[in-house]
Amino acid sequence: MQTKVLVDNILNTRYEDIPVEVIEHAKKSILNWMGVAIGAAYHPSVDMVLELKKDLNSGEQVSVFGRSERVDLLLATLINGMSSHIFDFDDTHLDTINHPSAPVAPVVFALGEWYDVSPKKLLKAFILGVEAELRIGNVVYPSHYDLGWHITSTTGVFGAATAAGILLDLDAEELLNAFGIAGTQASGLREMFGTMTKPFHPGKAAQNGLLGALLAKKGFTSSKQVLEAKRGFASVLATEYDLSRLNENWGKQWELLKNSFKPYACGIVLHPSIDACIKLREYAKPEVVKQIEVNVNPYVLELTGKPTPKTGLEGKFSIYHSATIGFLEGNAGEDQYQDEVVLRPDVVSFRAKIKPRVNSNLREDEAVAKIIFNDGSEKSVTVTHATGSINNPMTQERLNLKFSQLTHKILDEETIERLIKKVMDFENVVTVKEVINLSTVSQ
Amino acid sequence: MQTKVLVDNILNTRYEDIPVEVIEHAKKSILNWMGVAIGAAYHPSVDMVLELKKDLNSGEQVSVFGRSERVDLLLATLINGMSSHIFDFDDTHLDTINHPSAPVAPVVFALGEWYDVSPKKLLKAFILGVEAELRIGNVVYPSHYDLGWHITSTTGVFGAATAAGILLDLDAEELLNAFGIAGTQASGLREMFGTMTKPFHPGKAAQNGLLGALLAKKGFTSSKQVLEAKRGFASVLATEYDLSRLNENWGKQWELLKNSFKPYACGIVLHPSIDACIKLREYAKPEVVKQIEVNVNPYVLELTGKPTPKTGLEGKFSIYHSATIGFLEGNAGEDQYQDEVVLRPDVVSFRAKIKPRVNSNLREDEAVAKIIFNDGSEKSVTVTHATGSINNPMTQERLNLKFSQLTHKILDEETIERLIKKVMDFENVVTVKEVINLSTVSQ
Repeated sequence: MQTKVLVDNILNTRYEDIPVEVIEHAKKSILNWMGVAIGAAYHPSVDMVLELKKDLNSGEQVSVFGRSERVDLLLATLINGMSSHIFDFDDTHLDTINHPSAPVAPVVFALGEWYDVSPKKLLKAFILGVEAELRIGNVVYPSHYDLGWHITSTTGVFGAATAAGILLDLDAEELLNAFGIAGTQASGLREMFGTMTKPFHPGKAAQNGLLGALLAKKGFTSSKQVLEAKRGFASVLATEYDLSRLNENWGKQWELLKNSFKPYACGIVLHPSIDACIKLREYAKPEVVKQIEVNVNPYVLELTGKPTPKTGLEGKFSIYHSATIGFLEGNAGEDQYQDEVVLRPDVVSFRAKIKPRVNSNLREDEAVAKIIFNDGSEKSVTVTHATGSINNPMTQERLNLKFSQLTHKILDEETIERLIKKVMDFENVVTVKEVINLSTVSQ
Repeated sequence: MQTKVLVDNILNTRYEDIPVEVIEHAKKSILNWMGVAIGAAYHPSVDMVLELKKDLNSGEQVSVFGRSERVDLLLATLINGMSSHIFDFDDTHLDTINHPSAPVAPVVFALGEWYDVSPKKLLKAFILGVEAELRIGNVVYPSHYDLGWHITSTTGVFGAATAAGILLDLDAEELLNAFGIAGTQASGLREMFGTMTKPFHPGKAAQNGLLGALLAKKGFTSSKQVLEAKRGFASVLATEYDLSRLNENWGKQWELLKNSFKPYACGIVLHPSIDACIKLREYAKPEVVKQIEVNVNPYVLELTGKPTPKTGLEGKFSIYHSATIGFLEGNAGEDQYQDEVVLRPDVVSFRAKIKPRVNSNLREDEAVAKIIFNDGSEKSVTVTHATGSINNPMTQERLNLKFSQLTHKILDEETIERLIKKVMDFENVVTVKEVINLSTVSQ
């Protein structure tokens, strides 16, 4: 019954019913998603998946973000969903460690481009897709995640099916079938973290959810109770779950509003330390610094205690590197986690000056950093809530900057500016294609 | 470590190492698989999935069994894997209720056709794919199945990756990666049974496993310990498991030899009753029969007690219908489970003469059936082991007959005969294509 109620809730929600603040936050989510998707578009793993086009003699239908190639609908959702999760820099629903845009946005843009969908309809599909997956995540979190499931992928398949279902104009029975076909494909093991297969997950979820909706549209039959059935999603993929959370306060409370954006291209636990070191750089040039003491919650050092990282990826798990680049460069974007930056002599030598100290009185989104100058004097700063946390969300300016830093190697400055404007005014653009054209490069 | 050992075992097995009886049983498995795939090739669900070709502008690469269309490698594996499971008439590894060919055979034929693989290499890939998936099933059965996973699909994805890995000449590291990429896509809920999504499962497993191998070949990285890791396949998808079963007696004991073939197009529990009624028809014409008493294990009636089925599918869950057609037609193939047969007046009226009786002294593969004639006299027959059970396997003749009955509406008699001969002499055919050409129809 709960699956049916969710489907009815989805289909009964009109664009006009969605609060303006939800639409605004959705556009920010799309902007953030698009930035990470474009930024990672030339990662080797993307090239590998793109080669499937040749292996399969597959069709040219829609765009790959940040690139010139065109591929079929299913391959496009796989690639765009994957690229947006490669940097681990996409949006996060902190309550459930769910990255909601990666499996949903690729679907709305693939179908939006191919069927020339109206921008408002695309926004609605994105919003309801995200809302569905986050609510399903609420039902099964945390036991589902603890068991070993990559929740972004397992719930994302439902978000993708929801979004596709709206854009394909499924009726209630068809959308129920789409949920069944999508849900039975729910998969993605946390064991894959640290390999190319992690970002593959939300791409595959996008693809599988879209496939479910395409088949449901043709009359393909499935279970009508995939979420709540005895051998359905919640019961099989979670040891404890609460189905009452699925539809509670539908239309009144929006999970999408809890979606947050990372300012830095590394795990959230490092963000307060980076914030603090960026503040400190106002007080000193590197040559007068003897040492920087970074006081953090003990959990931080457990996860990021790597003193001498050798690669960009290792740098993301090093408080030493992250604090260093925060101080030296005033940023910790993807550019600061390149292999060559991690190995740069000035970075390596400054890293030795970082002294992390654990303090269990500090929360995870809090940090205190102190410079000890060469002359022995000191200067201390405190970060109460890290940038990007619920209590200190990214500003539009900061989000625009992030977008620009992620895409500047691929798009020119003017295009970036126009693209940001179009996305933040998405409901008023004339066609989806004018946005997509700015997001791709010519051959 | 266990995943690595399995991969090494797979790659170290040469065609010459495989016992002749395993090769013979593999060819029977392929023949049985091909019959059900061709037989179901015009099911409405197959048409729906085939329409994706148009939706996606997708390429023409390889054949769909029983049809004239050509589709790309991934779509072909989805369709051929699905069609072969539609009738629930494919092969069964009884220890684990696993249907091993459905996810593996589509992969070897798709790659075999496209890359013009040698027949012996194709056979080896099929055999090792089946062996891998059945052994993985042994590791997690029964807790995995009890939890609600469709084991054919969840383990099938590994079988498909194994088979594809062999045909794509993956090295050990690549095949390990293929296992990771495939295994993280393991999915398929038993909740879907009774809908089109059930046969979709092995098709999707075939497709996902092939995708894993294609990506691994390009250098895509994944976990190297997907089966045994803390958050890997066994731990996440089963409450209890025994990894020691994975590689035990590799090369000495072959799970594939335990693969059995169904003589009748319904659940295995009905097979002894049908056998018994087929025997009884030698002793009486329908008009002299007052009643047929069918004595079975109590479990049988629990599952198949439907007295007045209205459709072919319901007929498969009715001992009344199944015993009737066994007696009237001497068979219980897909033809005998068509809607029009279930509703035929002579069948409906004879059904009233069937009296099932439960007897807990009878095993599940045993039945005793007794005619009570109009004159009050009686004739009784006993079936000790149903046809198709481990102790009474299908003969080659019976298997050929099944193949012919499944395909006679699609292929002509001469083609059927030639195809059976070619499959049963597969290691000696010149190209895979000559077999596939006989399995498809011209436009």
